[in-house]
Amino acid sequence: MTSGLSSGNVEDSVVNFGDKVLLYFDKKRRWIIRVEKGKVFSCDKGKIELDRLVGLIYGSKVKTSANFDVYIMRPLLIDYLERGLKRATQIIYPKDQGFIIMLLGVAPGSRVLEIGVGTGSTTITLASIVKPTGHVYGYEIREDFIDIAKKNLSELGLLDYVTIKLKDARQGVDERDIDAAVVDIGDPWNVLGALYEALKPSAPVVFFVPSMNQVEKLFNVLTEHGGFIDIRCYELLLREIRLGKESIRPANFMVGHTGYIMFARKISRITT
Amino acid sequence: MTSGLSSGNVEDSVVNFGDKVLLYFDKKRRWIIRVEKGKVFSCDKGKIELDRLVGLIYGSKVKTSANFDVYIMRPLLIDYLERGLKRATQIIYPKDQGFIIMLLGVAPGSRVLEIGVGTGSTTITLASIVKPTGHVYGYEIREDFIDIAKKNLSELGLLDYVTIKLKDARQGVDERDIDAAVVDIGDPWNVLGALYEALKPSAPVVFFVPSMNQVEKLFNVLTEHGGFIDIRCYELLLREIRLGKESIRPANFMVGHTGYIMFARKISRITT
Amino acid sequence: MTSGLSSGNVEDSVVNFGDKVLLYFDKKRRWIIRVEKGKVFSCDKGKIELDRLVGLIYGSKVKTSANFDVYIMRPLLIDYLERGLKRATQIIYPKDQGFIIMLLGVAPGSRVLEIGVGTGSTTITLASIVKPTGHVYGYEIREDFIDIAKKNLSELGLLDYVTIKLKDARQGVDERDIDAAVVDIGDPWNVLGALYEALKPSAPVVFFVPSMNQVEKLFNVLTEHGGFIDIRCYELLLREIRLGKESIRPANFMVGHTGYIMFARKISRITT
Amino acid sequence: MTSGLSSGNVEDSVVNFGDKVLLYFDKKRRWIIRVEKGKVFSCDKGKIELDRLVGLIYGSKVKTSANFDVYIMRPLLIDYLERGLKRATQIIYPKDQGFIIMLLGVAPGSRVLEIGVGTGSTTITLASIVKPTGHVYGYEIREDFIDIAKKNLSELGLLDYVTIKLKDARQGVDERDIDAAVVDIGDPWNVLGALYEALKPSAPVVFFVPSMNQVEKLFNVLTEHGGFIDIRCYELLLREIRLGKESIRPANFMVGHTGYIMFARKISRITT
Repeated sequence: MTSGLSSGNVEDSVVNFGDKVLLYFDKKRRWIIRVEKGKVFSCDKGKIELDRLVGLIYGSKVKTSANFDVYIMRPLLIDYLERGLKRATQIIYPKDQGFIIMLLGVAPGSRVLEIGVGTGSTTITLASIVKPTGHVYGYEIREDFIDIAKKNLSELGLLDYVTIKLKDARQGVDERDIDAAVVDIGDPWNVLGALYEALKPSAPVVFFVPSMNQVEKLFNVLTEHGGFIDIRCYELLLREIRLGKESIRPANFMVGHTGYIMFARKISRITT
Repeated sequence: MTSGLSSGNVEDSVVNFGDKVLLYFDKKRRWIIRVEKGKVFSCDKGKIELDRLVGLIYGSKVKTSANFDVYIMRPLLIDYLERGLKRATQIIYPKDQGFIIMLLGVAPGSRVLEIGVGTGSTTITLASIVKPTGHVYGYEIREDFIDIAKKNLSELGLLDYVTIKLKDARQGVDERDIDAAVVDIGDPWNVLGALYEALKPSAPVVFFVPSMNQVEKLFNVLTEHGGFIDIRCYELLLREIRLGKESIRPANFMVGHTGYIMFARKISRITT
Repeated sequence: MTSGLSSGNVEDSVVNFGDKVLLYFDKKRRWIIRVEKGKVFSCDKGKIELDRLVGLIYGSKVKTSANFDVYIMRPLLIDYLERGLKRATQIIYPKDQGFIIMLLGVAPGSRVLEIGVGTGSTTITLASIVKPTGHVYGYEIREDFIDIAKKNLSELGLLDYVTIKLKDARQGVDERDIDAAVVDIGDPWNVLGALYEALKPSAPVVFFVPSMNQVEKLFNVLTEHGGFIDIRCYELLLREIRLGKESIRPANFMVGHTGYIMFARKISRITT
Repeated sequence: MTSGLSSGNVEDSVVNFGDKVLLYFDKKRRWIIRVEKGKVFSCDKGKIELDRLVGLIYGSKVKTSANFDVYIMRPLLIDYLERGLKRATQIIYPKDQGFIIMLLGVAPGSRVLEIGVGTGSTTITLASIVKPTGHVYGYEIREDFIDIAKKNLSELGLLDYVTIKLKDARQGVDERDIDAAVVDIGDPWNVLGALYEALKPSAPVVFFVPSMNQVEKLFNVLTEHGGFIDIRCYELLLREIRLGKESIRPANFMVGHTGYIMFARKISRITT
């Protein structure tokens, strides 16, 4: 049984009871399900008795009751982020998560602070990279979000690498010597003190903010605070290119905006 | 002494001889240097005797001989990618690297195949995430590129997690049961056979291609090959927002194009 | 009575029977209607007896039967393009039309050839600028499209400045000494001969093509043809910024692609 | 002799003394010059005696003294905007000008107010479309800019359709019943009163502002003022696609930001 993400072992290649698998019909029809004994999956393309999947090599094609093809794939992180998570809030999109990880240099062993866990989408990505020796410390003020986040992390076998606290980070955080921080709350200017205390000297932080007004305010407060340098701001536009026979072109509609990614690094106030 | 990237230990917080540090004057003036005994750093803002840095907390500010401020920061992955690597080729930009990692689900322990190592920029990012238990297997046909790549990896303490082969992947690759692959060569359609052999069933691959013509050809050959599904194509536009007092706006110039990111997943050819 | 677009006369400022007016409730609720005697406009915000509008200054606010505010505005070209035209095909968006006009230098008096009229959206814009002394010569092979185009042009009082022919331009066009041409058909490479004959020496043409494959093919055929230089290709991304109190940010969704704008200029084949 | 822009007459097709012509070598080597008796044009590709050009059909190819090809083209508006104008300020780019014209519905006969003429780049475009019966009324507080603007307009034969005043529009403007206005100054919120007085009821205005801070402030002041509705904001990204044999792709660098285009329409304050 595999707990979601690939672990790098060869024996993973065969479907077992308890595995989560991606049923892939086509670009739009794809579901992550758990292979449970005696269960039947059903959609507009027909039914599949899940017992039939056990023992198959991942990547195999099977036929539904209605004779449609479906591929049995091992779910990737991106599948969970795109399809497999319970949500209650806007998540940070994978394109932004990837760039945030690059900016912060998150790596195995990192101790990361996350202020504003929401339903745990970014937490999952962070945990999947800091494991097994690192840790994510998350703060969230809504208990219902924490419950969903924990369920999501648990489904992917990542809960051991994460601690989520029902606490308002604006009142301060408990951790010290943090390697990197991600802040995704509406008033990030109110956690600068907590961040400064928690971060290791020289460590980076990324703020994710949706509006220009927030960029302006955060920049002004960061500048006044004085404890951070190299303040930068980015936005990323992801465009999908539709691939068709003799017809390749960007998709007609795209996500035009998710949020601004602001970066800064803590300085030490001791001058020589 | 720290070997470049942060290791998560608190004792890292003080500069030692042998450390690589980022000297940060301002957005444009920033250098990664090694703190060597008796050496002097010099730029248009004055000189710094490097011996003075030893024992300082990271994030400290010192004055140059010309009385300018400079911050002594611990270099992040992004600093190496932006400033610190020797190059001979166009690299995959951090924005694209981040998204590639998200698409592939690269994580600690992953065994990653990289066809077209170049001077190792992407290799560094991959290695920094798969370590310590995973590995990157790289193929490159230019020996001079491999030399630079190894020097870069070595500077960041990542060489142990990487094997680079002076071999043409179009003739096949040696590895099997690979978790994920990145292909960055001019004729990616010529390595589909090698990829299919090397990848674990259901495992993903990303191709990075600069031109529309390559997108077209690769899509056509991938479709004909039949061993891959979920073929997608993306491009990412990164826009920097310039932050100034009462003047926040996107930068006047931006990188308008780096390359197209094509994704696919291997299927198993056994049908039930 | 005004025939749609503003004519620059002061007496236009008062609503008359027969005028087309824009009823503006809010960003999403806006309709272009004709003020006809005894008619009643009705929507989810209530009713308006149109007789009441006559004699009002444009820009006036009236109350509906349900006590909602509605502004009586003179419709602009952009209102017709966004809301007021009958359509059967994908139109060239205003952002692209505006840039095409700039590239071609369309101006009062210009004689413009339009191959692929569709339902006349671009024709309207061209005619509104070349009038009163210029002319648009349009070719379209679908009679039903021509009917709609003529109705649209007629509504805006622009039909006198346009001739639309039910003819396949791939067989040649009748006009000569054309100042500028716009081509919006699926196989633009098949009208290069006709274009070369029709255009004045040195005159420009713009091709609007949706896919990368078409860009490639058109570029190759244009290059082989040899009668055109300065071949360029552009795409325009329009992003709307949502304006809200304390919340200004790009719209979450945007049109990610309309088409590529290719430009070229005819050369004379006589060499000295 | 032609005064710059094409006039739609066939006799234009032959080069005369006094004509302004575009010498086109390649994408990067292109110059607008006047054909003066006895003059010689010279560049790194050789020399051309301009007398030789007289009598040639536009679009003809001639050889330089160094045996390079050069095409003799009639300059388009876009050539003047890209290459042919004297400047002292940042201009509104053609992509933005085109969209502004679409939003405003500028057409032959329009009476347009322009606050912030600068060196006249937008004025040229406006004048080229409102002529011969319309007019552009420009305000500019820097005399040196006005001198350049007039020289530019004169070169294109457009001065008759433009009046430029050395006056601060923040103190009010003289015109009334204006069809459309363009505002390109640093503090557009200070001309709302003047605009409201000058515009015809229901008429539109476009503001061109570079920074997010200006968007915010202008939106707030416009909202408070109450005399304008349908307040919108846009930005346009223009991407050039590089066309090469077997290598078509977006240009590596692009202009990432010019300015935000804000639109609004005047309402009449009389309510019924």
